[in-house]
Parts: sequence; structure tokens; C-alpha cells
Amino acid sequence: MKRMLVMEQQVKKDLFDTARKWVLEAGKTIRDAIDQPLTIDTKSNANDLVTHMDRETEQFFAEKIRAEYPEHFILSEEGYGDELKSDKGIVWIIDPIDGTMNFVHQKRNFAISIGIFQDGIGEIGLVYDVMNDILYAARRGEGAFKNEKKLLPLKKELRLEEAILVLNNYWTTPNNKVEDSKMQELIRKIRGTRSYGSAALELAYVAEGIVDGYITMKLAPWDIAGGMVLVNEVGGITTKADGEPINMLENNTILSCNKEIQETLLTDYIELKQ
Amino acid sequence: MKRMLVMEQQVKKDLFDTARKWVLEAGKTIRDAIDQPLTIDTKSNANDLVTHMDRETEQFFAEKIRAEYPEHFILSEEGYGDELKSDKGIVWIIDPIDGTMNFVHQKRNFAISIGIFQDGIGEIGLVYDVMNDILYAARRGEGAFKNEKKLLPLKKELRLEEAILVLNNYWTTPNNKVEDSKMQELIRKIRGTRSYGSAALELAYVAEGIVDGYITMKLAPWDIAGGMVLVNEVGGITTKADGEPINMLENNTILSCNKEIQETLLTDYIELKQ
Repeated sequence: MKRMLVMEQQVKKDLFDTARKWVLEAGKTIRDAIDQPLTIDTKSNANDLVTHMDRETEQFFAEKIRAEYPEHFILSEEGYGDELKSDKGIVWIIDPIDGTMNFVHQKRNFAISIGIFQDGIGEIGLVYDVMNDILYAARRGEGAFKNEKKLLPLKKELRLEEAILVLNNYWTTPNNKVEDSKMQELIRKIRGTRSYGSAALELAYVAEGIVDGYITMKLAPWDIAGGMVLVNEVGGITTKADGEPINMLENNTILSCNKEIQETLLTDYIELKQ
Repeated sequence: MKRMLVMEQQVKKDLFDTARKWVLEAGKTIRDAIDQPLTIDTKSNANDLVTHMDRETEQFFAEKIRAEYPEHFILSEEGYGDELKSDKGIVWIIDPIDGTMNFVHQKRNFAISIGIFQDGIGEIGLVYDVMNDILYAARRGEGAFKNEKKLLPLKKELRLEEAILVLNNYWTTPNNKVEDSKMQELIRKIRGTRSYGSAALELAYVAEGIVDGYITMKLAPWDIAGGMVLVNEVGGITTKADGEPINMLENNTILSCNKEIQETLLTDYIELKQ
């Protein structure tokens, strides 16, 4: 019996509808509070921000999930999830506010990101651009949507010279993850770069085809879980920056892109240091 | 008689209302055509794009201005303007679509930018985020607005460590304009960088305070004319990247930022090569 290996369609549909409802509800709460004063703390460093809204939003999801799906697991950013040693079972991978720096400084350009994985396979992806009320959503095998509109498959032909990549300036400066001189070569090769400050939204933009790829050297599972499912559904590919599969239980380097440019990026430009 | 040195308030108000009306009209035309096929050409290089919509939009403005204000001058991107040797008189400085690469690849994140200058002084600034229907607008001495909402003065206290700057990756790679190693130092100093691909919008974001500064090494007058007026009205400052005044008849390097960080950026980080 392989029944448990794949989530049944109706189960997935019900789960999707419930997750979607909670995401929209949490988003409305954030929008309604957007002009209220924030309690801002820092985490790993002075630029790693967290607010009471990140915490309250995550708590909202954790309580809902535990009440409705006590057998599911939660992997999440702000401490209300479980300590997971395995990716078995159904796991909600949650970033309550992805792009907290944007949330604090811009009051926009942040997202709620949720990926629901079963036995390590991404079944449902939700990335909600809260302030624009735009929900990017996908179920595995059933396509990705931007609100009601189905996203098209990614371009079938793409030259690197005409690609726009999301790449933060940090990775073109000397760093301990990637050879910056090769990243600089890449920048001179491609059409242009953009940087928006929310990994979840940046993956959604890859899925939407408004950028052709996203390269970054350190993301947590909750930054990418929702967006990966979106990118898969339009024929894009998300791996570690050396092309290896992502491990959803730890931080990863990331290359998410149109398949047409993946090999060249891996072979000619991304030279990892570790 | 100093009467001609400053635009009379009522004259400016009328001119503003007319320019605003035309900008909204041109924006609607672009929105209505956004899913139509584009004729795309390149200009100075393979990534310097222009479409028939850039040309038609500029032509729309040029015809309107010449019919209504035959004594005004036009300085614009796509060739429908005048050959100006002086900044005397009233000059409309127009970018019909600022961020053409975004227009082509993303169908959003571009702007119509208009600055109306008298004798070299920016009197009116309009930056219209077409797809979001958001008009950033200012008249000199009367504040800047985002649609109906008045923009607040920029933060009175700002440490560089907490600043978010707009800086394209290109300027952190070896180039002939600015010392890239110093730009890289800057990136490690500040809180973060963003890059959106439309100078006009990026200046509007400085004015809105959602980013704290914008550094770039080559912009034409039409890229900056509208945005500069916005930034001025909230107490920000826009100069060449060496702190010298901008020359509106030629390309300039640009530093537009919160005054709190201007001196440090000029003194400690921006080292121009020419």
C-alpha cells in the first residue's frame, strides 16, 4: 500500500482550504494593526528583527493547527513549533512574517509563508502578500495561482543574458559562503538584478516569472517552504546552490530558477566555499 | 522685480492640476494596454530597452504640452522633446516609462515621471506608479503626497547601521565610476539594501521613508526630475554622488538620502573614480 506516500486529493483540498482561510484571517489581523506601535527585538544579530506581531501571528497558527490537526507537526520561526528530528508525517512549515525588516521599515513587502509537507514532499504552498492582499497558492500537481489567476509555466527559452535575478548585494561582497568574484561576473552577464527583502515573495516572483531566478546563501526552511511549492508548479526548480536537494530540517543555500538557466548558473557562476 | 524667479502659487497650482490630469490619463492608457504585445527595441546596449508604449506615452505628453503651453520646453527620454542648451524658462522633464525593463519583464514596478522646473528649480514633481495607481506628487514648498496622504518629514535621527539603501549590485562590482570595495564596506555597515529597478519609484520610496537613501552612478535628468522634488519636500537631499549640485542638462551620479546619513556616505564610503 503506497497510500500514505501521497496525500489524497480531497484531503489536500480540505487542508488547503483551511490553511488558506487561516492565512487570510491572520493577514487581515496584521493589516488592521499595521499602524499600531511595534515591539521590536533583535535575534541572531542587530539586523535580525522580530516583533510582537511575528510572535502573535505564529501563535495564532500554532493554536489553530494543534486544535484542528493534533497529529500534524509544526516547524516555525518564532518558537511556537515542534522540535523536529524527522520530516515524516504532515509538517506545517511556517514563517508568520517573512521580511520582518520590510514589515518594520516599510509596512509592506512582507508575507505570511506556509508550506505543508508530507514525508518531505511539498504538497501545499501559500505565500500571502499581506498589504497587497495577493495570495500566491499551489497544491502539488494542480498548478499555482495568484489570487484567482493561474500562473503560466515559466518561459521555455531563456538566455542568461536576458535574465533578471534576485540577488542581494551581500553575496557580491567578500563573504564565507560563495565566491564573490564569480557573483560579480554573473552580474555583468545578466540583464539585471533586483532585491525585495522577502524570500517568500521573491520565490513567488520566480513562480510568477517576473524574475527568472533567486540566489541566496542562507535561508531557513520556513523562508522557502511555501515558495518552493509555487515554483515547482510552474516548472521551475529549487535546490541548494550546488544543485543538491534541499534539507527541510536545516538552513540551506538556495538556487530557485527557470530550468533553462540552472545548469549554467551552477557550473559557471556559483562557486560555494563550503 | 523678482516675480519671474519663483513660480506664482496659483500658476503652479494650475500647472500641477493639468500635469496630474495628463499623467493619470497616460497611466490609464498604459494599464488598459498592459496585456497587449509589445514592440521592444534596444538603445545604448542590449539591456537598455524601449517599447512603442514608451514612445507613444512621451508623444502624448509632448503634444499636450505644445498645444497648451507653447512657451514651455520639454526635456525627455525618447526624442519628442527639445534640444536644450539652458535650463531657463519652464521645462517639463519627462520619463514616459521609468523602469522599462520592469515594464517589459514584470508588467509592473514602473512609473511615469515628470518634473517641472523653472530656471533650474524643481517646482512640481509627479511619479506615478501606474499599475498600483499610486501617484506621488509634490509642489515646492507645499509638501509631498502619496495619493491623498501627506508624506511625513524624514526621520530626524538615523544611524547608518539602521539604514536601508537602494543600491544596485552593479555598483558593488568593479566598474569605472565608483570604488567598489568601498561600496562593499558600506553594504556590511548598513542594515540592508534593496533594488527595485525604477529610479523614479526608488526616489519616491526615499521620500516616503521606506528606504533611507539611493545611490547610483548614472542617471539622466528624466530619471530623477520628478523624484527629486518629492525628496526635497520631506527634508531629504539629492545631489551628485560627490555632494555637488545636480546639472539637469546632463547625466549625473546620484545620492538622494536622509540628511542624517549624507555626510557619512559622502566622506566615508562613496569614492568616485572620475
